[in-house]
Amino acid sequence: MRDSITVELDGARDYPIFFGSDVLGDASLIAPYVGGQVFIVTNDVVANLYLDTLRESLPTGVRSDVFSMGEGERAKTIETYASILDALIEARHNRTTTVIALGGGVVGDVAGFVAATYQRGVGFIQIPTTLLAQVDSSVGGKTAVNHEGGKNLIGAFYQPRLVLADVATFRSLPEREYLAGVAEVIKYGVIADTEFFAWLEENVDALRERDETAVINAVRRSCEIKADFVRRDEREQGLRAHLNFGHTFGHAIEKLTDFDRWLHGEAVSIGMGMAMELSARLEQVPADATERVHSLLERAGLPTRADGLDTGAMIEAMGMDKKVVDGKTRFVVCEGIGSVRVIDEAPGDLVRASIASRVTL
Amino acid sequence: MRDSITVELDGARDYPIFFGSDVLGDASLIAPYVGGQVFIVTNDVVANLYLDTLRESLPTGVRSDVFSMGEGERAKTIETYASILDALIEARHNRTTTVIALGGGVVGDVAGFVAATYQRGVGFIQIPTTLLAQVDSSVGGKTAVNHEGGKNLIGAFYQPRLVLADVATFRSLPEREYLAGVAEVIKYGVIADTEFFAWLEENVDALRERDETAVINAVRRSCEIKADFVRRDEREQGLRAHLNFGHTFGHAIEKLTDFDRWLHGEAVSIGMGMAMELSARLEQVPADATERVHSLLERAGLPTRADGLDTGAMIEAMGMDKKVVDGKTRFVVCEGIGSVRVIDEAPGDLVRASIASRVTL
Repeated sequence: MRDSITVELDGARDYPIFFGSDVLGDASLIAPYVGGQVFIVTNDVVANLYLDTLRESLPTGVRSDVFSMGEGERAKTIETYASILDALIEARHNRTTTVIALGGGVVGDVAGFVAATYQRGVGFIQIPTTLLAQVDSSVGGKTAVNHEGGKNLIGAFYQPRLVLADVATFRSLPEREYLAGVAEVIKYGVIADTEFFAWLEENVDALRERDETAVINAVRRSCEIKADFVRRDEREQGLRAHLNFGHTFGHAIEKLTDFDRWLHGEAVSIGMGMAMELSARLEQVPADATERVHSLLERAGLPTRADGLDTGAMIEAMGMDKKVVDGKTRFVVCEGIGSVRVIDEAPGDLVRASIASRVTL
Repeated sequence: MRDSITVELDGARDYPIFFGSDVLGDASLIAPYVGGQVFIVTNDVVANLYLDTLRESLPTGVRSDVFSMGEGERAKTIETYASILDALIEARHNRTTTVIALGGGVVGDVAGFVAATYQRGVGFIQIPTTLLAQVDSSVGGKTAVNHEGGKNLIGAFYQPRLVLADVATFRSLPEREYLAGVAEVIKYGVIADTEFFAWLEENVDALRERDETAVINAVRRSCEIKADFVRRDEREQGLRAHLNFGHTFGHAIEKLTDFDRWLHGEAVSIGMGMAMELSARLEQVPADATERVHSLLERAGLPTRADGLDTGAMIEAMGMDKKVVDGKTRFVVCEGIGSVRVIDEAPGDLVRASIASRVTL
């Protein structure tokens, strides 16, 4: 099974996403996008599984160097970024090189920032090996590293030339990590597509069991929705903010738990619950929508409560969120399944109550 | 005297360059381009001279923070870049902030890279206070920091929203630094404008004496030529490489002398001499053009020889130049005053001879 969609930008920078099973080893897909040198950024776990396959799929005569970075959000630092640049320069890669990200969202974000800024921008290919990265971070050109002061505070908008989304790579994905990706898939239903949400309600068990047809459908529809947002608002001037549904809360949860206790998708799952609670309190959304989202997240095996988090600390942590404009924290609220909007401000007591209703002390 | 030109890109990102005398203190020029916060990057020398004037010209109620960085190419490091990001985050600047570069090319390059990558890009204003920065680095959106492995290896293309080129700031510029800027002015004549080159031959003494009318004319024409190159080739895919005339040699000279012995413009002056010698050896240029360039650089008080440099070391240093494509070093050669072209390769012995002819042992 093989399929593709195109992320439409301005013509010159449009790029394809190929997805299906076992596309990673298909040399014919990569060949048109690389020159004489490639620089692969990955981590040890992923390298053990897929690096040989990727290298074998490179055209003959292409020189490949590899940088294996640390795992997890903790490795997504300006120090890792600088080390990769050191390695690129040490190996004398020039402007015609192509950086390939082989791994999850962390690898993609850091490698993308490297590609965006090495010699003011070189070629970039995303090969996301997690569900989360395939449906979220690999599409749309956001690259970044974290800072002590907050997540993704340093980065660039930089589009890949190609995304290869191989669902066969999920076979080796731990259950928790796989489900964290399902959280973002559910998000697409909530923010943009009532029918897709209903499909997810019907197929959540098949998705949990990683039924290939269900997985490919979920990845494809998620990428289509994301690509449409990116096409309409590449640099997050407005509309693209809808994709951050649940993320204002989610980022604060991650920050307060040191990026350690929950995976990003899990934090977003809890954050979506809080965002639905806030939407309900602002009377933006019918009560049954909140219940449907809650129920689907639970059926998907995702956390919907943050144990032991301090509500005051959450409020403070949200103050340095990137989505702050002139001192006000913006929220994405739901108006009903399939539709969200951005509000510039929300009453502090309602935000507190929404957080508190999803925190167990 | 007040004038402006527009750097034309894609409409949305077009930006004006205002130039003239004492434009820095004109609040009406800055006000439309800033929101509630600005973050000024400068150095101590420049801050002593112009920071108060700039701050007074900001609209009432705008919060301004200042970062004073070290001086010279040595300060143009990823460490300085990271320190400025730390300060921005510490002071809780958000996405709506505007980074203002107040200083020479080093300040502009580093501050621009910060603006390009803080929260994936914030507003940016260039206030270049040296001739070199006004005619070269502040226009065109190149931002970067240096790496041990080479100059400007890490950076981004990121356009300012406004450039304020105040020639009154030259009054405090040391002679050597001012003349280093004249080197780039002469470059514009060589690469793109026979008439401008002839005007420079006639007005080089007035320019050296910093006659205001002559200076403004030189800055305006230089910016027009550069803006035209940038408009036609924003990301240096081809044509914009012409602006690098003399720079392949110049960068190698700077690298071998640890960015310490010559100012950038001085190294470019020597590099242009070497590039003219190479052009002559490749029979690309009439002998009298080489002589005219040499003579104008000398009359402008610029160095035309590199004492004590090793030719072999120069060749090696050029191997990691950004302008290398697939192992070959590209050169910009002159076809006659006002016209240059890029060649993908040059015979090693001719490159050596060209360097050697401008090196005194």
